[in-house]
Amino acid sequence: MREKGSHRRADLDAVLAAGFLCHLGVDVDGTTMVVPTAYGVEGDRLYLHGSVASRTLVRAPDTTVCVTVTHVDGLVLARSVFEHGVNYRCAMIYGVPRLVTDPDEKLRGLRALTEQSSPGQWEYVRQPSRKELAATALLALDLTEASVKTRSGPPDDGDSEDAALGLWAGVLPVVTTFGEPVTDPVLPPDVTPPAHVASRAGRVLGE
Amino acid sequence: MREKGSHRRADLDAVLAAGFLCHLGVDVDGTTMVVPTAYGVEGDRLYLHGSVASRTLVRAPDTTVCVTVTHVDGLVLARSVFEHGVNYRCAMIYGVPRLVTDPDEKLRGLRALTEQSSPGQWEYVRQPSRKELAATALLALDLTEASVKTRSGPPDDGDSEDAALGLWAGVLPVVTTFGEPVTDPVLPPDVTPPAHVASRAGRVLGE
Repeated sequence: MREKGSHRRADLDAVLAAGFLCHLGVDVDGTTMVVPTAYGVEGDRLYLHGSVASRTLVRAPDTTVCVTVTHVDGLVLARSVFEHGVNYRCAMIYGVPRLVTDPDEKLRGLRALTEQSSPGQWEYVRQPSRKELAATALLALDLTEASVKTRSGPPDDGDSEDAALGLWAGVLPVVTTFGEPVTDPVLPPDVTPPAHVASRAGRVLGE
Repeated sequence: MREKGSHRRADLDAVLAAGFLCHLGVDVDGTTMVVPTAYGVEGDRLYLHGSVASRTLVRAPDTTVCVTVTHVDGLVLARSVFEHGVNYRCAMIYGVPRLVTDPDEKLRGLRALTEQSSPGQWEYVRQPSRKELAATALLALDLTEASVKTRSGPPDDGDSEDAALGLWAGVLPVVTTFGEPVTDPVLPPDVTPPAHVASRAGRVLGE
């Protein structure tokens, strides 16, 4: 079995740690919406920016949402169309999110969110003012109800009848990396990226 | 405005053409689920593998789903936490999917799906048998109700008060590429990847 399911917390943590963007599914007046948004992890909680979901929550505070984080690792190229697939790591979290209102928690949540995608930025840039904090819609979601699914490795038809076809089969890896930082064109050319940004160029996301 | 919305078909086509994986949001017995799945485009239709959604559709055939395709292009690193963001291209498609039952359409849909992620594979590998076709759950979704959102370019605070802080600001690009094909270890070492696979190594997804 190259496809695996897991409910272990360590597996969930690993998938969440490897990214910064999730797809948030929420019911808005009877219509399902799936919106990409940034997330951060702090302890047993996921924090997320979610203007769509927070608008819903104000009207329907007991709405269960689904947050899905997916990393694509490769195309599984088999000997038959039927056996084609994708190598991936995917976490799904279900729960009723809570709109964060406490300013201290909002600050902690925003810090987790900022550091998830851009470690080092929280200390480097100007932190939120009271007014900015108030204008930010932040959601907290417990990591209690979650599952992880992954697929890895070669195609499954290596010992099937199709192996006799003599075709090539294997995996075409998909790799997500950071490029060279692009400086804001309004800055003078001698302003160079700080080390915590410059050092990420060429690195694989989540490593 | 570096954030843009569009309902133009050409913008939708461009986002869809640049990927092969979507997040499908569907209501399953009152709970929203967001599932990553492969898609293909043929004419005015999106085809997708969707076992979860198809199980729902059998019970509730008029279920509206949301399909979201997101490409992350970079981290927007501003002078303040508040102005941080992500450069992205995102398409959202709403509609009531149709369970494809006609064998000819199923074959066309599977071809679109296979060629979307792996151009050249449909002709190279063994195509589906009648039995395999019957075992595949394929959904068709019209591209009529769709919207595209994108963000590109530098942070928005280049002419704000924060510019005086003298901090570096800009974009850290995120790039998704194909790696070198990994041959199934059960194959003899002289079986090399066909040109349509080997030629993708090092190429950016969607280019």
